[in-house]
Amino acid sequence: MPDDGHSFDLATAVAGGPEHWTAEVDPGWTVAGRPNGGYLLALATRAALETAGQPHPLAVSAHFLAPSDLGPAELEVRRLRAGRSLSTVRVTLVQEGAARLEALVTAGRIDRDADPGWRRSGGPDGLAPVEDCVPGRPELPGGMRANLLEHIDLRLDPATLGWLAGRPGGRLDMRGWVRFSDGRAADPLALLQVVDALPPTSFDLGLASWAPTVELTVYLRGVPAPGWLACIVRGQLWQGGWFDEEAEVWDSAGRLVAQSRQFAGARPAAPAGDARPPS
Amino acid sequence: MPDDGHSFDLATAVAGGPEHWTAEVDPGWTVAGRPNGGYLLALATRAALETAGQPHPLAVSAHFLAPSDLGPAELEVRRLRAGRSLSTVRVTLVQEGAARLEALVTAGRIDRDADPGWRRSGGPDGLAPVEDCVPGRPELPGGMRANLLEHIDLRLDPATLGWLAGRPGGRLDMRGWVRFSDGRAADPLALLQVVDALPPTSFDLGLASWAPTVELTVYLRGVPAPGWLACIVRGQLWQGGWFDEEAEVWDSAGRLVAQSRQFAGARPAAPAGDARPPS
Repeated sequence: MPDDGHSFDLATAVAGGPEHWTAEVDPGWTVAGRPNGGYLLALATRAALETAGQPHPLAVSAHFLAPSDLGPAELEVRRLRAGRSLSTVRVTLVQEGAARLEALVTAGRIDRDADPGWRRSGGPDGLAPVEDCVPGRPELPGGMRANLLEHIDLRLDPATLGWLAGRPGGRLDMRGWVRFSDGRAADPLALLQVVDALPPTSFDLGLASWAPTVELTVYLRGVPAPGWLACIVRGQLWQGGWFDEEAEVWDSAGRLVAQSRQFAGARPAAPAGDARPPS
Repeated sequence: MPDDGHSFDLATAVAGGPEHWTAEVDPGWTVAGRPNGGYLLALATRAALETAGQPHPLAVSAHFLAPSDLGPAELEVRRLRAGRSLSTVRVTLVQEGAARLEALVTAGRIDRDADPGWRRSGGPDGLAPVEDCVPGRPELPGGMRANLLEHIDLRLDPATLGWLAGRPGGRLDMRGWVRFSDGRAADPLALLQVVDALPPTSFDLGLASWAPTVELTVYLRGVPAPGWLACIVRGQLWQGGWFDEEAEVWDSAGRLVAQSRQFAGARPAAPAGDARPPS
């Protein structure tokens, strides 16, 4: 079990139960003042796992309803299925009486020794070695901060970093390496944070405005080995102000340990060119 | 609007509202006696859209809790966000007092004239022309039936059909063309059915047992043009008894109109070889 003294565990601690939990949305896991979506999903899923009585999330689907604030939150959990091998619960993150995030969580136990019966890809293709990557820094343009990067050691592939210098790659691509700064081992719960730790792929497309996530689904496929996690994020389509992006997370033993997909909005910061905002 | 006389609309009709709907799970949309997952998702989402007061689903995330039966069902819908451009509702399909399926639906209006601002792929790569594909038939091995295929005209790519003759391709791949048999035009609601209309990719891997879906997420990206829909389905990993599969649906105008991902179980039908069932 992870040491409760690690910052991720402190920031995702929940109290109460069995169906009503309280928590604190931590100021240390923000980007530009807002709690990171992966962090919120990990917080909500920690309460879900407690209620479900299962060790690992297997499939987590979240819809983001309204921006979350820092500070007190309630997590309302409802059991939907209670099986021996699979349990499903619904969890709603509520602040000041308003639902901010709702997720469905199917949980069970991931066999840490399972070998791939078949896999399409052999690893995180196209990611530069960690020593050639660029450390993410909490200081953002415009005087904003990504406090998240005080807790997450992020190394970004230079090939997907052109946007920082005003030369975006022109694709929905983002690649990098992730680990916790304080040495906490990643587990399936922590992978919910990891899949959302990189900048949005829309930055690589030259869309500098922040990208509000509408939906985020994560499948947990393995218990990660210690060490760096390789993250490959790709989107298929930006249209009508919406884009998708799919993340794969590979552990240091070369196993695919998480897959995620999100649906998010992104509009040009400048007056609209050939793109249209969501109708 | 689709003609209510088409079989898909009759089979997904809901009555009542605004938060409590009744429906009939139709015997015509089954595979091997069980209602198809995509059909159930379309039925639930029809009620969700009515409650949300929005024309199109944008992102739909469902967890399958227990097998559904044919016959009466209740759809309990709860509003989670009511915005001008985006609304989110939760819908629970209940039969005999037990939740069988719960889904989160974010809905809005898809701009049918939006052009891609950027896209990775130009089309349904690798799919054989429809005239070279094999019509799906309701008769299944072992005396079972896919009633679904009396309503859906499915043409399967011979390259992903080897399993029918005992020579599976050995990959998580399935490709084909889909349209409604009675000529109903596909709309975003119907795409929820289309993404789940092909046989599971696990068949191509040689896993002949049926594949129970745990989670299914669909993003609706466009309003399809009339004509055949091209479906490309690929999985990344089969491990520990679980596999993922991702479907892309392209319309006759060459637009990506839906993306889905599901997490499902599949075990060898014979005594276990090198694969392990879910723990």
